[in-house]
Amino acid sequence: MIPRYSRPDMVAIWSQETKYRIWFEIEAHACDALAELGVIPKSAAATIWEKGGAATFDVARIDEIEAETRHDVIAFLTHLSEIVGPEARFVHQGMTSSDVLDTCFNVQLVRASDILLADLDALLAALKRRAFEHKDTVTIGRSHGIHAEPVTFGLKLAEAYAEFSRAKARLIAAREEIATCAISGAVGTFANIDPRVEEHVAKAMGLKAEPVSTQVIPRDRHAMYFATLAVIASSIERLSIEVRHLQRTEVLEAEEYFAPGQKGSSAMPHKRNPVLSENLTGLSRMVRSFALPAMENVALWHERDISHSSVERYIGPDATITLDFALGRLTGLIDKLLIYPDRMMKNLNQFKGLVHSQRVLLALTQAGVNREDSYRLVQRNAMRVWEEGKDFLTELLADPEVMAAIPEAELREKFDLGYHTKHVDTIFARVFGES
Amino acid sequence: MIPRYSRPDMVAIWSQETKYRIWFEIEAHACDALAELGVIPKSAAATIWEKGGAATFDVARIDEIEAETRHDVIAFLTHLSEIVGPEARFVHQGMTSSDVLDTCFNVQLVRASDILLADLDALLAALKRRAFEHKDTVTIGRSHGIHAEPVTFGLKLAEAYAEFSRAKARLIAAREEIATCAISGAVGTFANIDPRVEEHVAKAMGLKAEPVSTQVIPRDRHAMYFATLAVIASSIERLSIEVRHLQRTEVLEAEEYFAPGQKGSSAMPHKRNPVLSENLTGLSRMVRSFALPAMENVALWHERDISHSSVERYIGPDATITLDFALGRLTGLIDKLLIYPDRMMKNLNQFKGLVHSQRVLLALTQAGVNREDSYRLVQRNAMRVWEEGKDFLTELLADPEVMAAIPEAELREKFDLGYHTKHVDTIFARVFGES
Amino acid sequence: MIPRYSRPDMVAIWSQETKYRIWFEIEAHACDALAELGVIPKSAAATIWEKGGAATFDVARIDEIEAETRHDVIAFLTHLSEIVGPEARFVHQGMTSSDVLDTCFNVQLVRASDILLADLDALLAALKRRAFEHKDTVTIGRSHGIHAEPVTFGLKLAEAYAEFSRAKARLIAAREEIATCAISGAVGTFANIDPRVEEHVAKAMGLKAEPVSTQVIPRDRHAMYFATLAVIASSIERLSIEVRHLQRTEVLEAEEYFAPGQKGSSAMPHKRNPVLSENLTGLSRMVRSFALPAMENVALWHERDISHSSVERYIGPDATITLDFALGRLTGLIDKLLIYPDRMMKNLNQFKGLVHSQRVLLALTQAGVNREDSYRLVQRNAMRVWEEGKDFLTELLADPEVMAAIPEAELREKFDLGYHTKHVDTIFARVFGES
Amino acid sequence: MIPRYSRPDMVAIWSQETKYRIWFEIEAHACDALAELGVIPKSAAATIWEKGGAATFDVARIDEIEAETRHDVIAFLTHLSEIVGPEARFVHQGMTSSDVLDTCFNVQLVRASDILLADLDALLAALKRRAFEHKDTVTIGRSHGIHAEPVTFGLKLAEAYAEFSRAKARLIAAREEIATCAISGAVGTFANIDPRVEEHVAKAMGLKAEPVSTQVIPRDRHAMYFATLAVIASSIERLSIEVRHLQRTEVLEAEEYFAPGQKGSSAMPHKRNPVLSENLTGLSRMVRSFALPAMENVALWHERDISHSSVERYIGPDATITLDFALGRLTGLIDKLLIYPDRMMKNLNQFKGLVHSQRVLLALTQAGVNREDSYRLVQRNAMRVWEEGKDFLTELLADPEVMAAIPEAELREKFDLGYHTKHVDTIFARVFGES
Repeated sequence: MIPRYSRPDMVAIWSQETKYRIWFEIEAHACDALAELGVIPKSAAATIWEKGGAATFDVARIDEIEAETRHDVIAFLTHLSEIVGPEARFVHQGMTSSDVLDTCFNVQLVRASDILLADLDALLAALKRRAFEHKDTVTIGRSHGIHAEPVTFGLKLAEAYAEFSRAKARLIAAREEIATCAISGAVGTFANIDPRVEEHVAKAMGLKAEPVSTQVIPRDRHAMYFATLAVIASSIERLSIEVRHLQRTEVLEAEEYFAPGQKGSSAMPHKRNPVLSENLTGLSRMVRSFALPAMENVALWHERDISHSSVERYIGPDATITLDFALGRLTGLIDKLLIYPDRMMKNLNQFKGLVHSQRVLLALTQAGVNREDSYRLVQRNAMRVWEEGKDFLTELLADPEVMAAIPEAELREKFDLGYHTKHVDTIFARVFGES
Repeated sequence: MIPRYSRPDMVAIWSQETKYRIWFEIEAHACDALAELGVIPKSAAATIWEKGGAATFDVARIDEIEAETRHDVIAFLTHLSEIVGPEARFVHQGMTSSDVLDTCFNVQLVRASDILLADLDALLAALKRRAFEHKDTVTIGRSHGIHAEPVTFGLKLAEAYAEFSRAKARLIAAREEIATCAISGAVGTFANIDPRVEEHVAKAMGLKAEPVSTQVIPRDRHAMYFATLAVIASSIERLSIEVRHLQRTEVLEAEEYFAPGQKGSSAMPHKRNPVLSENLTGLSRMVRSFALPAMENVALWHERDISHSSVERYIGPDATITLDFALGRLTGLIDKLLIYPDRMMKNLNQFKGLVHSQRVLLALTQAGVNREDSYRLVQRNAMRVWEEGKDFLTELLADPEVMAAIPEAELREKFDLGYHTKHVDTIFARVFGES
Repeated sequence: MIPRYSRPDMVAIWSQETKYRIWFEIEAHACDALAELGVIPKSAAATIWEKGGAATFDVARIDEIEAETRHDVIAFLTHLSEIVGPEARFVHQGMTSSDVLDTCFNVQLVRASDILLADLDALLAALKRRAFEHKDTVTIGRSHGIHAEPVTFGLKLAEAYAEFSRAKARLIAAREEIATCAISGAVGTFANIDPRVEEHVAKAMGLKAEPVSTQVIPRDRHAMYFATLAVIASSIERLSIEVRHLQRTEVLEAEEYFAPGQKGSSAMPHKRNPVLSENLTGLSRMVRSFALPAMENVALWHERDISHSSVERYIGPDATITLDFALGRLTGLIDKLLIYPDRMMKNLNQFKGLVHSQRVLLALTQAGVNREDSYRLVQRNAMRVWEEGKDFLTELLADPEVMAAIPEAELREKFDLGYHTKHVDTIFARVFGES
Repeated sequence: MIPRYSRPDMVAIWSQETKYRIWFEIEAHACDALAELGVIPKSAAATIWEKGGAATFDVARIDEIEAETRHDVIAFLTHLSEIVGPEARFVHQGMTSSDVLDTCFNVQLVRASDILLADLDALLAALKRRAFEHKDTVTIGRSHGIHAEPVTFGLKLAEAYAEFSRAKARLIAAREEIATCAISGAVGTFANIDPRVEEHVAKAMGLKAEPVSTQVIPRDRHAMYFATLAVIASSIERLSIEVRHLQRTEVLEAEEYFAPGQKGSSAMPHKRNPVLSENLTGLSRMVRSFALPAMENVALWHERDISHSSVERYIGPDATITLDFALGRLTGLIDKLLIYPDRMMKNLNQFKGLVHSQRVLLALTQAGVNREDSYRLVQRNAMRVWEEGKDFLTELLADPEVMAAIPEAELREKFDLGYHTKHVDTIFARVFGES
């Protein structure tokens, strides 16, 4: 967890305090169920809730006990017994440490997912707002980094909106993957604990019972979870790189918002660097990298080994905290992005008329010229624009072979920008359900 | 593509012949729509279907043209015009190469997914059959590779069944991710082609129209697809490693089927090596590795660059062919796995009665002994079993502190194996919907 | 292995024919040593060389035998006995399959390394030639994609030269890592074979004896090897992305060589796309991805398991063939790169004089203005250039606070481009040992 | 940074305090060189050392300034000017932030490497001590997890020693990779600073001057560094997994040291779990994962972008701190590993005499029986041991075809364990230079 790339709500989910509070809730809910089943006294369950619910768990004290016992759950239970008194002996009956640890981890991931889903909603809102704002702002579309044909800036943002809508759907599915609870005992057989306890705890904690656990909740679920975050990070990278390209000195079609007090560089004060989107590029690499150890965690030995645990101490907090921060930063970036339509138009016209070459090519084909000849005609005029700075339309008008094929009025019509944007409403309707 | 790790049906999807056939279908369906819209003559569309549909595309000839033009789609179209004649000029109107390439790639991935889904069904069937066969075969559960408490072999397979059921659900979702079609032109604006052409081709090819494409279908879809395969591979690795553990000389609770003519080693004829599951472990690593470049493919520049293309030439075939082979091999392995219940029981009893220590611990706590004392009592007797090979029950019966807390009959009851399997039916019902 | 990303010399290393030839050489050299030690008759060794050396191994026949025995080395030895006759019984004595397989794999990797080293030499030569050609070609340096201060194009290539010099040094070290031979028997104890046989074979095959093998040559060596290729691929990616940036329509300071017959796009004939460097970007991702399974291969169980084998069937050929192709393609790209100094100068002057702001800042500080004030003075004039298109020098000359601090002549001197290139010779001398 | 997987010396390297101290030293050494060159007054350099050297940098104050300026180096320099007074204006002249940041990062990595090298020395010492202690402790070698032929436990440790010796050599090379210093200004041209300043600072900080930097020290160096750590981590994983296998209940040839107060599980007191080696397995996955974003950091845009920075804030500390902790833990684990020779012998004899089958096979071949027949004879007797629990020697003695080929005394000699260990001294001499 890197403080500068962290936000407090997500950090709080991963605090020791939160963890022990969740552990307590799992244990106390289990006591309720055990009491209901007559395994332990109802008064014990009541006492546990009463005393534990009011208590603040002393992290330092638990650390102290763990230093001796070398076992975190035992340390917690020992501390709990200090708070609850003799009734504490009814806690954790028939359970195994992983019941608490795994269910807690999933509760944390579910809560983290809820924050991330809210983050995505905020990002989607920003993207939608700016997309509609620039629905008709014409800009050059680029393939291979080379000018192709006109698009609108709104379309770029609509694509991002569609992509992050998919991200949201994936995250909802990933949240579902890890929203399970296991209270099934030492090897998952419920030998010492009734499956109804698991059902009760699951429901109380907002989870589903894991259909079959071993000692642990199977880690293919978590692999899928972190892989999903990695794919979302890759989409963040894509949008960040788009902004970085647009802010290049030679392109300058958009800029990250520049706070008045901000200094771009210690030596070159004129520079406005896309540092947020560069930062997002790096953060995306990190979130992506966490998918790997999560996948390597799947193949635990037999009913479980503990090799996944250390991995999850890193990636549980780091992946969710970093992604939360990144989504927040990206939302702010999009929300305040400085967008320069004039410069877009200037860039689009850099090669006079050449963006319309595709239309001319089609016009020639439709006029009956064969594909190869059409291509040759367009190419020879295009090359004069490219190499000599000529105007494409002028060149075409002076090319007798072209003019023999297409009437002048029709040729001129091929240079209408509106032609390219006529289906923007259709696309917006597809993406946003409105246009 | 490694021939020894390939099966013909999946390989066929990725052949040049299949690719050109799909390209043709995309182009010809587009022609139908264009003809319906009055953009090209209906007779042209009919001719294209008639001549192209009957033709065998000459891969060598297309390679030859590509060597000159350095553009694969142009090479194909040129060859197509050799087959179709002058009507070929109506093909590909308003389209861009990526319309054909990306839609084709998705068709291939969809077909590959269908094979993989059938593979998963076969694996699930094998797992279910063997799970029910060994529903009540008691074996020791192990955590950390150390004996814990009894489970049944059927439970192990039920867990695998549940895990691969999740794999199937994930793959269905992943198939949905990439089942899209884009026929949207040079930068995705439909400037030169009506969106209805895309709708028509999508439907004809069993896909959905991509809501907003740039020049390409966005690669977050494919990243999610390959990440999903990677997670499935991780589950294959898990089950393979389980088998490898079970076949260890000292464990020997199960063995891969050993064909009569097979030689395990050039020098040690007695060895029966778990070579299939070891092989599956390696193949899983490969499928997992392909997720990474797929994620790095997401951040294409602006409306597209071509950097994803080379990556997909590797991972498209390699990931699906390898996973298909691995699933098939795993299915055969499970189907014919030699399972040794006697050895399982022998291993379970290796430390006489120690597997029941948890029950004794609980009994002590429930009898009113506090947690710390109960733990101490169990531990001191357990250590004599561990270190001196004593029998756990005998030791407990001779421990006055224990006997003061628990009546003998109750203590003896704690050593009943049936106690551990009483909820197997419940778990099977959860997993299979029957027990 | 993707044919279009493959070159014949590297492909040949990984053919079945080459593999069996190397297997034969390993076995035959071992026979020489065994004969020398009196373990087998010298006449047998001579016969083996004579008949085996002259033979062409029949790959199809070996496949046929393997289909029955399911063991590749036994299949080969059976085929060899068909060629050599009864003397073949002296072959492979005291050896294990891995002795042959692992030593062969390392021979193949060594040969692959030699090709890759030659590739790097060719790339370095191209970089050096172009670096000196453009040693003094001034171009704008960019940080964050934003104009910073002038550099020369030769410096960019010098950096690449230095980077690929490091790549070469790393590859030499990586080659050393895997240039080992193991002929140590079933578990590496030389129980059935004298260590002198290993020494002999190692020397004959251009390798060193592995100091301690288990059954296999330890895979940390190969992990390091493939990790090194991955780092080299990352450097290829860097240089490729540099070219892609330079070829952007708005930048256009360099272009990949454009073959006369080449068509950039099926629809936009004017486009010259940096398809080679985009392709190299994708290939780099693939080579990078192969490092992971190589690292996961390290932790083989006990004296070995076979899980690494399938991985190496993919990555052995794919990593080396792809990297060889990529290095060759990059060399050609650099060699023929079209470089446009005029455009570089035009871009450099896009913001009139602003590239000199750092010098002005320093001049102010050195003139006794404190850091904060100097910064403020530079910034307010720079902003007028940025926002209003003014000329930086003109603005400064009109700013009384600036002029109060710096004499005009000195200020004008700060706008000399030569100032920035004065140490180019020093850097070239560091990198190339000459300037 | 996870506190429980951290050791203080390594953590200290990455503290803010250390970072600012290194920044100060870089700036102050640069001032010395600038003073020597006459660019700034010698008295200024002296004052800077005097006041800055005595000062404690106030991290909170710097954070406060950074919150306003959004630039860490400027924040530090501002704070430094608060400490040093007006002479502070001579600090950082002609330098760029990356000069400080990159050189500092490399200093930190060099110091981290020195700790890691000491860690490796300690591990190597432990491995060597235990290797010699068990040089002659016979144990069964296993391939595929299946009993093969005898080795000694010392050989296993010798292999680990050789592997970590390679790790050390690789780390020395990786340390060399990143032991460079850049003080080259905004785009690496030394436009505003004399190259001799860089030479001076490099020497003073124990580094070499970077031959050619852009604005940054090229990141292929760091990619190689973190890739090297990843390979070392993979070797840790290998040794950890070996221990986990040996501690399995059914194998139990070695155990992690079990501290008296340690509780293995909250419910099963008899369990001694290999939790340290499982933990090391997980930590290895993490260190391995950090190689990827380091490689993705290589392709910075043009003379630099800042995307690498956030990545390095994670992986710089996390990779080195985790690896330091892991090496320390592994050293303790090896140092105190409980090793059970009796159990090793018991396991070796599990299949009576079968480990000698290879020798019998060879004896038959050498006695003139052809390979196929020898194999068949060994196999039919081996199968009776395997399936019926017979004794291999007894079976062979009763097999007339075998006895017709080999005299009884010679056959009995083939069952001598010493045969397998006769070259242990040779291998130890190769690995340790002594035996």
